[in-house]
Amino acid sequence: MPENKGPKISRRRVLQSAALAAGGLGLKALGLTPAAQAAQAPAAPPAAAGATMIGVAFEPRAVVRVGVIGYGGRGQSLVHDLLGIPGVEINAVCDLVKERVAAAQVAVEKAGQKRPAGYSSGDRDFENLVRRDDLDVVYIPTPWRWHVPMAVAAMEAGKHAFVEVPAASTLEECWRLVDASERTRRHCVMLENCCYGENELMVLGMVRAGLFGELTHAEAAYIHDLREILFDDMEGLWRRDEHFTRNGNLYPTHGLGPVAHYLDINRGDRFEALVSMSSREASLSARRDRLPAGDPRRRDTYACGDMNTSILRTARGRTVLLQHDVVTPRPYTRINHISGTRGAFRDYPARVFFDGSRTEEWGSLKPYRKRFEHPLWARLRKIASKSGHGGMDYVMSWRLMQCVREGLVPDMDVYDAAAWSAPAPLSEDSIKAGSGAVAFPDFTRGRWKEPRPAFTAS
Amino acid sequence: MPENKGPKISRRRVLQSAALAAGGLGLKALGLTPAAQAAQAPAAPPAAAGATMIGVAFEPRAVVRVGVIGYGGRGQSLVHDLLGIPGVEINAVCDLVKERVAAAQVAVEKAGQKRPAGYSSGDRDFENLVRRDDLDVVYIPTPWRWHVPMAVAAMEAGKHAFVEVPAASTLEECWRLVDASERTRRHCVMLENCCYGENELMVLGMVRAGLFGELTHAEAAYIHDLREILFDDMEGLWRRDEHFTRNGNLYPTHGLGPVAHYLDINRGDRFEALVSMSSREASLSARRDRLPAGDPRRRDTYACGDMNTSILRTARGRTVLLQHDVVTPRPYTRINHISGTRGAFRDYPARVFFDGSRTEEWGSLKPYRKRFEHPLWARLRKIASKSGHGGMDYVMSWRLMQCVREGLVPDMDVYDAAAWSAPAPLSEDSIKAGSGAVAFPDFTRGRWKEPRPAFTAS
Repeated sequence: MPENKGPKISRRRVLQSAALAAGGLGLKALGLTPAAQAAQAPAAPPAAAGATMIGVAFEPRAVVRVGVIGYGGRGQSLVHDLLGIPGVEINAVCDLVKERVAAAQVAVEKAGQKRPAGYSSGDRDFENLVRRDDLDVVYIPTPWRWHVPMAVAAMEAGKHAFVEVPAASTLEECWRLVDASERTRRHCVMLENCCYGENELMVLGMVRAGLFGELTHAEAAYIHDLREILFDDMEGLWRRDEHFTRNGNLYPTHGLGPVAHYLDINRGDRFEALVSMSSREASLSARRDRLPAGDPRRRDTYACGDMNTSILRTARGRTVLLQHDVVTPRPYTRINHISGTRGAFRDYPARVFFDGSRTEEWGSLKPYRKRFEHPLWARLRKIASKSGHGGMDYVMSWRLMQCVREGLVPDMDVYDAAAWSAPAPLSEDSIKAGSGAVAFPDFTRGRWKEPRPAFTAS
Repeated sequence: MPENKGPKISRRRVLQSAALAAGGLGLKALGLTPAAQAAQAPAAPPAAAGATMIGVAFEPRAVVRVGVIGYGGRGQSLVHDLLGIPGVEINAVCDLVKERVAAAQVAVEKAGQKRPAGYSSGDRDFENLVRRDDLDVVYIPTPWRWHVPMAVAAMEAGKHAFVEVPAASTLEECWRLVDASERTRRHCVMLENCCYGENELMVLGMVRAGLFGELTHAEAAYIHDLREILFDDMEGLWRRDEHFTRNGNLYPTHGLGPVAHYLDINRGDRFEALVSMSSREASLSARRDRLPAGDPRRRDTYACGDMNTSILRTARGRTVLLQHDVVTPRPYTRINHISGTRGAFRDYPARVFFDGSRTEEWGSLKPYRKRFEHPLWARLRKIASKSGHGGMDYVMSWRLMQCVREGLVPDMDVYDAAAWSAPAPLSEDSIKAGSGAVAFPDFTRGRWKEPRPAFTAS
């Protein structure tokens, strides 16, 4: 990381710790954690390194020039989608593995574009890619620990950083992204494809139309049996490591992103406090013990509990249940639940219930598509249906490129990237504190109160 | 309440408070709540007023002589079931409303039994009922605030107390029940009918057969839209009041009871800590505002949030998600989820998933009935199907009477009644402490480590 940001971060940590410590005294009688007290009266947000990026539009351009760092499974899928979108040029590709760079160059040429420059000379070669003068946006589908250094380097080189999830793994990293975006005037967009899912965008419209009344509670999760992936030769090479020392809600953004939009997080409300508890670890070590004798991974030990359950409270008093379980044999779900004074939506399968219903059973979401299908899906359904994750991947890439080309304000900015990623480190902190409540930083520095549109594409 | 228990209770409260306060110091640096610290190193359990009631059998008898306090909706349903069970005599009935006592007397006579004695001379007349010498068991289906004084009075008069849910509403009340049961050598059984549900008993058998592997996480809830009931002329006369000043998980036992049996709570594991968070209140006041002008209830104000989400951690490191929402328009669920290293069960609708499954979808529970149908259901299915709540009410009453007649150890004892009721006051405490973790009392005083059977009826 560039040295000049070290001091900023540590000053903030001190500010916050001081606030927490101070908080501990006043309400000791009530048994409040310092953190819980801070949650009720958060410390003044740290000084900004630049003006806010809220509401800042891209400069319009006819063609979006893209560089890609990381051509693993996710990089290949993103590049495939980008090559199917008009007005996008892929001019440079970086990967540690030379063969992957070559494969990317072939893929881009096959799509009728000129051969992109390749970078594969060690793990700092991405710094040469971001310095190029023929890039507007740098995509960063790399292992988690590389997201922030790469995104910050891209922004400091004058490029917009489009980074995979989670954007950051520590609170310091979250603030570092906010700082870099505000100081460089470049956007940091986290590639949260689930925000572009068909059901998610439909339900967002239904929420805004008031069908569920006043929202009080939401639920989100990443429950996905990754036991085989965590031991494979792709993500298994780095992703299992996150379970060695971290115990918490390691992968919060897929579930939380769409729910954050339902609740207008950073657009009229904000996450204010979090409490978290993890179960014991059992399933990943059980899988490990089925490895052949002599496999060095049989010496793994895992700190991360099988199931993490966290609860978030917002400034407007709404609660969000947030779960994480990637090791237990059970079907996939992000839950994707919202409830209010007039009704509720719950996914897996997608279903709705409204006050005054004749039955006490859930009803299907399908009948609401006619009225609430999102314009992006009305426009892109046919081609999206051929792309990954039920089409949300293509819709996301198309919409992001539309925002850059047409000079729109992105649907998701650096404050969203920070707020949706922060539950991972915050849950680790809460668990270390015996499941005490911890204060949720206000990455917008008070601007969360301002209502503003998102996903208004037509 | 008899004076002699006042001092005991307050001494205990002091003991506990002292432990909590002490706890606050040691780990301040870690930001632990005093309560969270206590949760990790709980205070020594208070001195017992008598030997444990764990494993204590009823004295066998040919006929069980029953008195009933409360002949409202629930009392009528319980009496109806009891009149259909051989070897049960209802000898006395008490209710504030004379007409209800008369109705009960008619119902009992119609069933071919002699006219039971009636008590309806004010709100202490139950004390005359419990003093009778022709009763073995006193049923207590009354408003929550009367459960403990009536159960304690029954036990002190030498009767076994079978009390409706929740058995107690404060920690002091939980301890008072434990004290009374241990001192009087009479059982206090909470009438948790959901423990006798068909799916619940089947899944308990599947858990014990190891189908789900090592259990790590469970989920329970009481999500039931009671808005109309809370304003009606039966439960509405008292139950809505609980929402005026209390904010927490007010009605935890229906969801938690069955899950506690899956996890061997008080039979090899115990609840150790709880954290809780409530959403803002919105739905009950919205319903209140639809009352006609001039209705005095329009002046109600409600402290209880629409959705309460609590998380419990057990001594063996399992977690339990526990939710409460009785005011939001959404379909009924108790969730009833269990997951482990080999699979998971989830209810509403009942479904299972096991490791190695060919699909990534849930499968039906039905195919497992052949092998795992509980003996009580195999025996009682036909007649149970005619009774309340899908048959669980009849199965519960039949089984309880079987235990008393045959001199068996009850499936649910006073320690279960206390442990399943305690999340209500504990969640209120956690919320008052800014969602800090609170220590869960060990009502068994260390005996929770002893494995012991339950629901082994054949």
